Amino acid sequence: MKALVIHAANDLRIEEYPVEAITPDEVQVSIAAGGVCGSDLHYFHNGGFGAIKLKEPMVLGHEVAGHITKVGENVTNLSVGDLVAVSPSRPCGHCLYCQKGQRNHCLNMRFYGSAMPFPHIQGAFRQTLNADASQCVKAVGLSAGEAAMAEPLSVVLHAMKQAGELLGKRVLITGCGPIGVLCVLAARRAGAVEIVTTDLSDNALSFASKAGADRTLNTGTDADALAPYTENKGYFDVLFECSGAAPALTAGIHAMAPGGVVVQLGLGGDMSLPMMAITAKELSLKGSFRFHEEFAVAVSLMAKGLIDVKPLITHTVSLEDSLTAFEVASDRNQAMKAQINFGTGVSTGVSTGTNSAENTGTLN
Amino acid sequence: MKALVIHAANDLRIEEYPVEAITPDEVQVSIAAGGVCGSDLHYFHNGGFGAIKLKEPMVLGHEVAGHITKVGENVTNLSVGDLVAVSPSRPCGHCLYCQKGQRNHCLNMRFYGSAMPFPHIQGAFRQTLNADASQCVKAVGLSAGEAAMAEPLSVVLHAMKQAGELLGKRVLITGCGPIGVLCVLAARRAGAVEIVTTDLSDNALSFASKAGADRTLNTGTDADALAPYTENKGYFDVLFECSGAAPALTAGIHAMAPGGVVVQLGLGGDMSLPMMAITAKELSLKGSFRFHEEFAVAVSLMAKGLIDVKPLITHTVSLEDSLTAFEVASDRNQAMKAQINFGTGVSTGVSTGTNSAENTGTLN
Amino acid sequence: MKALVIHAANDLRIEEYPVEAITPDEVQVSIAAGGVCGSDLHYFHNGGFGAIKLKEPMVLGHEVAGHITKVGENVTNLSVGDLVAVSPSRPCGHCLYCQKGQRNHCLNMRFYGSAMPFPHIQGAFRQTLNADASQCVKAVGLSAGEAAMAEPLSVVLHAMKQAGELLGKRVLITGCGPIGVLCVLAARRAGAVEIVTTDLSDNALSFASKAGADRTLNTGTDADALAPYTENKGYFDVLFECSGAAPALTAGIHAMAPGGVVVQLGLGGDMSLPMMAITAKELSLKGSFRFHEEFAVAVSLMAKGLIDVKPLITHTVSLEDSLTAFEVASDRNQAMKAQINFGTGVSTGVSTGTNSAENTGTLN
Amino acid sequence: MKALVIHAANDLRIEEYPVEAITPDEVQVSIAAGGVCGSDLHYFHNGGFGAIKLKEPMVLGHEVAGHITKVGENVTNLSVGDLVAVSPSRPCGHCLYCQKGQRNHCLNMRFYGSAMPFPHIQGAFRQTLNADASQCVKAVGLSAGEAAMAEPLSVVLHAMKQAGELLGKRVLITGCGPIGVLCVLAARRAGAVEIVTTDLSDNALSFASKAGADRTLNTGTDADALAPYTENKGYFDVLFECSGAAPALTAGIHAMAPGGVVVQLGLGGDMSLPMMAITAKELSLKGSFRFHEEFAVAVSLMAKGLIDVKPLITHTVSLEDSLTAFEVASDRNQAMKAQINFGTGVSTGVSTGTNSAENTGTLN
Repeated sequence: MKALVIHAANDLRIEEYPVEAITPDEVQVSIAAGGVCGSDLHYFHNGGFGAIKLKEPMVLGHEVAGHITKVGENVTNLSVGDLVAVSPSRPCGHCLYCQKGQRNHCLNMRFYGSAMPFPHIQGAFRQTLNADASQCVKAVGLSAGEAAMAEPLSVVLHAMKQAGELLGKRVLITGCGPIGVLCVLAARRAGAVEIVTTDLSDNALSFASKAGADRTLNTGTDADALAPYTENKGYFDVLFECSGAAPALTAGIHAMAPGGVVVQLGLGGDMSLPMMAITAKELSLKGSFRFHEEFAVAVSLMAKGLIDVKPLITHTVSLEDSLTAFEVASDRNQAMKAQINFGTGVSTGVSTGTNSAENTGTLN
Repeated sequence: MKALVIHAANDLRIEEYPVEAITPDEVQVSIAAGGVCGSDLHYFHNGGFGAIKLKEPMVLGHEVAGHITKVGENVTNLSVGDLVAVSPSRPCGHCLYCQKGQRNHCLNMRFYGSAMPFPHIQGAFRQTLNADASQCVKAVGLSAGEAAMAEPLSVVLHAMKQAGELLGKRVLITGCGPIGVLCVLAARRAGAVEIVTTDLSDNALSFASKAGADRTLNTGTDADALAPYTENKGYFDVLFECSGAAPALTAGIHAMAPGGVVVQLGLGGDMSLPMMAITAKELSLKGSFRFHEEFAVAVSLMAKGLIDVKPLITHTVSLEDSLTAFEVASDRNQAMKAQINFGTGVSTGVSTGTNSAENTGTLN
Repeated sequence: MKALVIHAANDLRIEEYPVEAITPDEVQVSIAAGGVCGSDLHYFHNGGFGAIKLKEPMVLGHEVAGHITKVGENVTNLSVGDLVAVSPSRPCGHCLYCQKGQRNHCLNMRFYGSAMPFPHIQGAFRQTLNADASQCVKAVGLSAGEAAMAEPLSVVLHAMKQAGELLGKRVLITGCGPIGVLCVLAARRAGAVEIVTTDLSDNALSFASKAGADRTLNTGTDADALAPYTENKGYFDVLFECSGAAPALTAGIHAMAPGGVVVQLGLGGDMSLPMMAITAKELSLKGSFRFHEEFAVAVSLMAKGLIDVKPLITHTVSLEDSLTAFEVASDRNQAMKAQINFGTGVSTGVSTGTNSAENTGTLN
Repeated sequence: MKALVIHAANDLRIEEYPVEAITPDEVQVSIAAGGVCGSDLHYFHNGGFGAIKLKEPMVLGHEVAGHITKVGENVTNLSVGDLVAVSPSRPCGHCLYCQKGQRNHCLNMRFYGSAMPFPHIQGAFRQTLNADASQCVKAVGLSAGEAAMAEPLSVVLHAMKQAGELLGKRVLITGCGPIGVLCVLAARRAGAVEIVTTDLSDNALSFASKAGADRTLNTGTDADALAPYTENKGYFDVLFECSGAAPALTAGIHAMAPGGVVVQLGLGGDMSLPMMAITAKELSLKGSFRFHEEFAVAVSLMAKGLIDVKPLITHTVSLEDSLTAFEVASDRNQAMKAQINFGTGVSTGVSTGTNSAENTGTLN
C-alpha cells in the first residue's frame, strides 16, 4: 500500500508502506478519504510549528474515514464493508490525566501524524490502516468525505463544551477557516441567537455566511469593524477564536460583554493581550485542545442531519494528486477543506466512498 | 375596561375594572393576546393548587402581549404602537435573593395572577395594563399571539439553563402539554441529537412529533415503553419532566444514564422516588421555577425565527368567549395552547394583534 | 493466609486462603488495618441490601491499608516496607463510561467485596492482598488505621465535589455515622461558615460536635428541630444527606435556601419527597456514589494534617476478634468506626501499623 | 468633619467636609478604621492608573468600618453603637447587568473613591459617612480594623468563586501584597492541600508564610524558581495572580497542570502571554473584579474565627498622620496593610474601634 510521508519542509512523498496483520482487537480499514488539516500544512511548508519540529520521516494525516476490510476476532460491533470514521485520539488510559478523565492530555498520547514525541507518531494518510475497534465509529448514511470531517468537527464540539450553553447567546467567531466555519455550524445548531464572524479573506467569510453567520466582517479592509460592539462594556457572550492571530483575539476581547467566555482554538505563539479588559470584565479565556469522547457525537450529529459539513469540502483529489491538494489547501482564497481519496477501489466489493455531487469541486 | 376575575372555583367573571394613570417609568398596554396557563386552569377548576388557595377575587393571567398606548415621561426605548411582550416577573430588587442575583426567588415577588401572598397579586388578563417599561420587550415581526408565548418559552429557557449544554445530547421529555412541547422545540434548537417524549394523550404526542421529537411514546397504553432505555445503566443525558406525575418521573429516572440531569418543571405534590437509582447513578434532580432575564431572550429567539411557536397556538377566542377558552384549554385531547384576544380595536390606529392564519383554530 | 468470608446472613467465617504470585504490575500487601463499613454490616446482618444479595461466599472488605512485602518488576514508585492505602476502585478503563471519564460508573467495575455482579468481587479483608501498583498510595506519616480511612474519606471528597465551593457556605449534614462525621470534617476544612448536624443518636452527634459541627440536633427527641431554618424559604446552601432515611431528607429539603444543593450519600430505598419544594426552590438533588481519583487526595489531606480522622476510629480489634468487631460496629450508641488489625507481625521487619494512643478503644 | 481628599498626584489633603442629614433608609457611621488600598496609592503617587485619571478633587477610600451614630426611620436591623463594616459596592439595581445578577458590572456603579466616571464617586475616608443600611454588616466581636478588612477579603472571596472548589487542590499564588496574603488565608481555609507563593520581596513572602503558605519562592533572586513545577505538563490546579506583573503570570502559566484555572486579580496593562501553553493545556484564565454579595460572607468568616486577618494589619495611624500612612503603605519591605483611625472618640459612648494589641505596629 501507499502512504503520504513528510520528510522535511516541502518534501512530501508518496511511498510504499507495508501492510501489517491486525491484532484481535483491531480492524483493518481501507482509507477512502483524508482531510488536509492546518497542522499538516505546517509540516508541509515549514517542517513543523513552534517548538514542534520533524526529526524523522512521518506519515501525515489524522482526519480519515474508510471501509473495513478485516475484523479482529474480539471485535463484535463492526463488520467488513462498514464505512467508519477513525478517531486519531489514542490516549494510554493509565497515566495521571487518563485516570482523571482528561484523556486529551494523556502523557503518552499517540495522536496520528504528530511530531511532538520522538519517535514520531505515524499518521493515517495511507491506503490501509490498522485501528483499534474502539477508535472506529460507523458512519451510516454519510459519504466517506463527510465521515472524515468527524475529526475537525470533534475539535469544535470540544470547544463548544468549554463555552457551555449557547441557547440564546450572542457569539463571535474570529477566523473562518474550516474550524471557524464548523464553529458557525455548531454554534447555530446549539441555538446561538446571533453569530458574527471576522476574517481577512472574503472567500472564507462567504463560507461562514453560507454556514449561517448573521454577519461577516472583513477586518482586513476595516480593522475597527468590531468597534460598534464595544459599547456598554461589550456585546458578545462567547467568542470562538479560530485564527491564532493576536489582533483578532484582542479586538474580540474588547467586544465581549462582562462575564463572557473566550474559547481559544487557534494555535499561535505569544500574544500581547489587554489584561485590564480581561480582569475588569471578568472574562474567561479558555484554551481548547483536541477532543476525545466527542468523536462519536460528531458522527451522530452529521448522520442525523443536524450538522451538514458537505459545503465545506471544496476539493477532493486522488492520492496521485495529493501534493496539489496541499498546495490548494494552502490558498485561503480558493479552498476551504481539501480531501484526498486514498481509495484503491478493490478488495471489498464496496464502492470506495466518494463525496456527494455538490462537493466535487476539483483542482482541474 | 374589562378584566377576567376569578372569585372561586368555577366562578370566573368578566368584570369592569378602572384604568389608572401611568407613572413616569410605566407604559400603558392595550392587551391583545393572553394565553391560558395550567395554573390559571387550577384556579378555574379548583380555586388553587396545593397550599395555594384563593382568598379574595383575583384578576387571572400572566402570559400577555399587546400594543403600547401611552408612554411615561422617563421611558425612552418604547413608543406608542409598539407590540410588546410583557413579563409578569416583578421582583423587588432589594431582598436577600435579589441581591444574590436569584430574582425568581424574590421574597417580595409580585408575579401577575398569583394567590401565593395575600393580598393576592392581580393578573394581566385585562384590556388595559400599566407596566414598568423594564417589563416590556418589543416583539418586532411577531404576532401578538406569538409574543404572548414569550412567557411559557421563558419558563422553558430557564429550565434549559439548569440542564446545561445540550449539543449532541440525548433528551427525554415526559409530559407534552405546552411546556413539554416547548421543551421539544428548545432542546432541538439547542442541538439535542435525539429527543424522545412520553405522554398519555396521543393528541399531545402528535404536537411533540410536529415540534421535532424523534420518537413519541404513549405510556398510557404501554407503561413500560421506556424499558428498552434502561440497559447498561440507562440512556438519556437529560430529562425535562413536564408532567408533574410521579410515574413519569420514576420511569424517566430509570432511563437516565449515569451523571444525567433531571430538570423538574412539572408541579406536583409529594412523589415516591427511587432514591437508590438517583444515588447510584449520580443523577442531578434539579427544580426549575419561573424565570427572569430569559424573557428578552425568548422574544429574540422567536423574532429571529429560531423557535417557531405558532403551531402550538390551537385556539384564539374573543374576551366574551373566554370561559369557553378555559374549558377548551382543559381538554388535552383537543387543545394545546388557547389564547384570549383582549383587543378593543380602538384608540391607537394600530390593528390589534391577531394571530397568523395558520393559528386560527377556533372553538366552533 | 487468612481471610474474612461471608457465606450468608450471620455466617461470617475466618478462613484459610491461598496466597497467589504477583504479576509484574502488582505489589503484595500485608494488610494491617481494615475498616468495617455500613455495607459490610448489611452483608453480615442481612446477606445483602436492596436488590443486592449474596449468591456465593465472598471475602468482605474494601477499606484497607498495609505494608508492601513484594514489588512487581514493572513497579518503580513503591518499595518493600512502604505503608500504602489500597483503593478498592478497579474500573476496566475501556467501557463507555471509562472512556467518558466516569470511572466510578464503569460497566465492568471490580470494587472489592461487592455482590453486585456474579461471580462476586472478592474483597480485601485478608492478610495478604495482591493489588495493582496504581491502586496503592503511599501513606507517609500516617498509621495504618488512618490510611485505611482513605476509602470512606474518598467517598466524602467525591460528595464534596458535587456540592461545589463551600467557602462561606451554610451546611447541613443529616446522619452522623462515619460518613456524616467525615462530612463535618471535610466541610469545615473546605471553609463552611456554619455546620449543623442531625441524628437520632446522641453518641453519633457527640462525634459530629468534636469534629467541628457548630450545632447538633437530635431529631429523634425533637422531630421539628430544623423548623427554625425554614423561614424566608430556607437557610442552608448545602445538605449532605448521610442517613438514607426519608424523614431526614424531607426535613432537610424544607430547610434549604433557594438554589441549594442536596447531596445524597446515604443509601436508601424509595422515598416520598416534597417535589413542590424541590421545584419551587430550584434545589439540586445530586446522588454521590463511590469515587475514583479522590483516593490519592484523601491520603494527602490526612498526611498534611489538614483532616484528622483519628478521633473517629473508636475500636481496633485483632483478626481473631473480628466477629465482635462487626457486632460493636453495629451499635451506634457505642462505636463510630471499628477496624480490624490483620497484621501478622512477620516477614517485613516493619512493625504492623497500630493506631495512635487515643484510638485504642477496644472491645475488652 | 474631616475627609481625606486627593487633588492630584502627591497632593493629598485633610479637608473640612460638611455632614449631611441621613435619609430614612440610611445610617450615619462614625468611621473608625480605613485601610489604604493599592488603588489609593496609585491616585496618591500618579493621580490615577491606566486610563483612569483624576479630573477633580476626590475623597479617597473604600475599606472602612465604624460605629453607627444615627439610624434612619426605615432601618430596623441596625442600632446606634453597632460596629459595622461598610461595603463600598453600590450598584444601581436596574441596569442590564444588575438585572442579570452581575451587580459588580453595573453600568452605573458608584463604588467609593473611584475616578472612573465623571463626576467622580466620592470615597469613604472621612470621619462621618452616610450609608444605606443595606451596605452595612454588623461586625460583632471584631475590632474596627478587622472589620475594615472585609473589603479586601471580599475581593478575595469573589476570586475564590471563580476558581471553584479548592478542597485538596494545589494552589499557586503570585504576588504577596495584602490581596495575595488574603488569598493564602482563604485558599487554606477552603482546603487547598498545597500552597506555593512567589514575590520579589522577602518581607511580603514572610507574611505569606505566616498566613500558611507551604512554600515561598523569591522570584527576584531566582527567576526560575517555578521551573521544577513544569514537569509532566505542570503541577498546580489553581493560580491566583495578584501581582499584575506579566513575568509572574507567564511563569505561573507554565507551572499549571492541564485544565487548571488561573484567576487574575492583579491589575496590569497589556501582557504578552504564552497562548500556546494556555491552549494546549486548556487552561482557564479568568478575570476577577471587585465583589458584591461576598461582603457579608467576609464579615461572617472573620467573626466566626475562620479567617484571621489581624496579622496583616501592620500599621494603624491617626487621621493627622495619614500622609505618613500612605508613604509607609507604599514600602513593601515594611508594610502589609496600613490603616487610618478616623475616630473622633466622641458622641456614641462607644470606644472607637482600635486594633488589638498584636497589630499595633506604628509609624513612630
